[in-house]
Amino acid sequence: MKVQPRTLSGFMELLPEQQVIMESIMDVLRETYALYGFAPLDTPIIEASEVLLAKAGGETEKQIYRFSKGDTDLSLRFDLTVPLAKYVALHYAELAFPFRRFQIGKVYRGERAQRGRFREFYQADIDIIGDGKLDIANEAEIPAIIYRTFTRLGLKKFQIRVNNRKILNGFYAMLGLSEKSGDIMRTVDKIDKIGPDKVRELLVDSEIGLDVECANKILKFIAIKGKNSEVLDALEFYRGKNELFDTGVNELGSVVKYLGAFGVPEECFAVDLTIARGLDYYTGTVYETTMLEHPEIGSVCSGGRYDNLAEYYTDKILPGVGISIGLTRLFYVLNEQGMLNQSESAVDVLLLPMTEDLSPAIELATKFRDSGIRVQLYAEQKKFKAKMNYADKLGVPFVVFVGEDEIKEQVVSCKDMRSGEQTKLSFEQTLQRVNAVLTEQHRGSIIKE
Amino acid sequence: MKVQPRTLSGFMELLPEQQVIMESIMDVLRETYALYGFAPLDTPIIEASEVLLAKAGGETEKQIYRFSKGDTDLSLRFDLTVPLAKYVALHYAELAFPFRRFQIGKVYRGERAQRGRFREFYQADIDIIGDGKLDIANEAEIPAIIYRTFTRLGLKKFQIRVNNRKILNGFYAMLGLSEKSGDIMRTVDKIDKIGPDKVRELLVDSEIGLDVECANKILKFIAIKGKNSEVLDALEFYRGKNELFDTGVNELGSVVKYLGAFGVPEECFAVDLTIARGLDYYTGTVYETTMLEHPEIGSVCSGGRYDNLAEYYTDKILPGVGISIGLTRLFYVLNEQGMLNQSESAVDVLLLPMTEDLSPAIELATKFRDSGIRVQLYAEQKKFKAKMNYADKLGVPFVVFVGEDEIKEQVVSCKDMRSGEQTKLSFEQTLQRVNAVLTEQHRGSIIKE
Repeated sequence: MKVQPRTLSGFMELLPEQQVIMESIMDVLRETYALYGFAPLDTPIIEASEVLLAKAGGETEKQIYRFSKGDTDLSLRFDLTVPLAKYVALHYAELAFPFRRFQIGKVYRGERAQRGRFREFYQADIDIIGDGKLDIANEAEIPAIIYRTFTRLGLKKFQIRVNNRKILNGFYAMLGLSEKSGDIMRTVDKIDKIGPDKVRELLVDSEIGLDVECANKILKFIAIKGKNSEVLDALEFYRGKNELFDTGVNELGSVVKYLGAFGVPEECFAVDLTIARGLDYYTGTVYETTMLEHPEIGSVCSGGRYDNLAEYYTDKILPGVGISIGLTRLFYVLNEQGMLNQSESAVDVLLLPMTEDLSPAIELATKFRDSGIRVQLYAEQKKFKAKMNYADKLGVPFVVFVGEDEIKEQVVSCKDMRSGEQTKLSFEQTLQRVNAVLTEQHRGSIIKE
Repeated sequence: MKVQPRTLSGFMELLPEQQVIMESIMDVLRETYALYGFAPLDTPIIEASEVLLAKAGGETEKQIYRFSKGDTDLSLRFDLTVPLAKYVALHYAELAFPFRRFQIGKVYRGERAQRGRFREFYQADIDIIGDGKLDIANEAEIPAIIYRTFTRLGLKKFQIRVNNRKILNGFYAMLGLSEKSGDIMRTVDKIDKIGPDKVRELLVDSEIGLDVECANKILKFIAIKGKNSEVLDALEFYRGKNELFDTGVNELGSVVKYLGAFGVPEECFAVDLTIARGLDYYTGTVYETTMLEHPEIGSVCSGGRYDNLAEYYTDKILPGVGISIGLTRLFYVLNEQGMLNQSESAVDVLLLPMTEDLSPAIELATKFRDSGIRVQLYAEQKKFKAKMNYADKLGVPFVVFVGEDEIKEQVVSCKDMRSGEQTKLSFEQTLQRVNAVLTEQHRGSIIKE
């Protein structure tokens, strides 16, 4: 009796040609994060439940993969932030602060399975953790990293939207609405979907129960739009009434100013007063990133500034700023939208020996590999047509033939599978030709728009 | 009440400077495997228990992390071979054979915790899977890949030991001992520890109950030693008595011959007739890799040829050959032995702004990053000494200062932290100097002996 092989639903498992693309994306992330001095981090996927769930509750807790082994209560991590908090609290004495780390790793959430939702998925996080304090420049650097990352991936039509929670909290304090600010922000958050009139109605008629004048002030405030300098100018109108608000405006001004110095063009980031993110965690700058032609996807990269990373584990005050890419979901969406360049092959040259003794073919493969060319030796005894079918299936750019003639004449027969052109050249000349084509191909971006 | 932060015992969690080294090792593995045309694979860490445990039993099953979520019986993978078998059976129609994949991933075994034993650890596997057949050349290519991998890592004093199970099985068949071959091999396996006389005693006096003449023949056979060509010559003496044996000798001859063509020097691989590996799984060539100055560690990389990868899932005959590095354990051992070059820093340049407006410093950081230099901007307001302490803690090779003078004169002040030398040069000249030192540093290998 055979067991039916299957992969659990909600678990992504890619075919080789797609996995190659996923790995290229991860390479770009790793390289770009490293350019900004972030060190790689790798924490266990399993943690003691008492440690992992120190903070959790409600919805999150229900989704946790939690189980016992022996008499230990274990859980699989559901994000990379809680393990980071544990790591920093545990290794505090051994780390240099500010501590910059990136982590690309799988996390687990037992959500209801549905198309495009995953129970095992990669997050790619960067965070900068300060000891006691953390300079505002870091809050401008984080979106600059995301800009470089997305640009390197080939994404062009995206926008990083930036706001500051101090501005929002300060503004509601001005109106004497601090108590209700959570409810108000949740309502205001719907403005893109239901429009301003419906928002006003909800603010006045619901439990929130604002008077119309107050609701109008809020709608006027969040209607502030325009170029970043225009939005900042408009915010000056409110200055001097609330200290927190003023700090927020100063911080937002610094972030906007420094983003330019970090090389981010104005069209790729926008101050957007409607962005609030989660309500408790973030305390300063907040980010969302949208793909301009696919707003329906929502934010593909979000984060912000928080005041205390590890309060559940330590008395140390550890403020930080970070951002996270939901990599598995992003890959899924790009693939669905046909936005991934499928031209990547895991192999540059398929080498076909045509002699019984494989030694000359193996020696040639070794020479190519010594020069950095990815060679697959195809030693199986098949008909020529089967071998060429295999080359097509792999999508390999070159096929090299090693027969008696080539060995005698000390030349390499090499077929360019894209153009169909076949050459008989010396090894060095063949290597040059192969490298030229590969360089051209690698210039293509991973994502196309 | 704070929760005490902790990491579970048996779970490796590295500090940043060590993690950088681990990542470099993984990079070398990925790059080298890719040179041989292996595609990356990533399968879920969680599988349905019924699928994952189709074959398992005994010791393995006891170590499994197994639990339920909803009404699904789930298990964490305990190796990368079973998920590969599932993958190949499930995606058979979509794959091109021979199918070459590498996978570097975490696996889970709830072993008794002890020093140097891990419950979560990385395996780095390469396998070549054929459809029905697989050429012997693949069995020579696998150790050639390991040779290049270890050499690139900087390991020199290692030896890949090669044998062929057909030779062993054929030899015992010649003696009419096929039934007892398992017990005999397990006894013979102890020869390094207990010596030949004790092995003879066990073969004769234990349940195996061989006569002395037979035991002597076995001891004479496994005592065959010498250069690879000498061992192969000695095996010729037994030829013609058993077909399986003769096939094994032919295969071993091909592997030895092709290993040379693959560029593996004779001193790095040895035919060793005492190697048997697990008893049921492997059917042809088998490999073990030992570090010559640390035989106590045992094999750091093992594998072999098997006749049917996925028999629990499919009727298709899928022979293959593969090898696995226990990466977490290897890293642990190298670290314990002081064999890891600790000079790697995650940052090339620490950039210290000395002006209130950070824009000029940020612009310089951006220019360095555009040129591929990994820059950390240190924007915190600390005393100069604290900043330099931070640079020391990071182990960063260069510190760049951006003050009013540098901005006015359009120069870059750059201190080489190794030599102590400080220069004031143009950006381009500084970049050249930094790149020269970094190139020199990167020439160092990851592993030192």
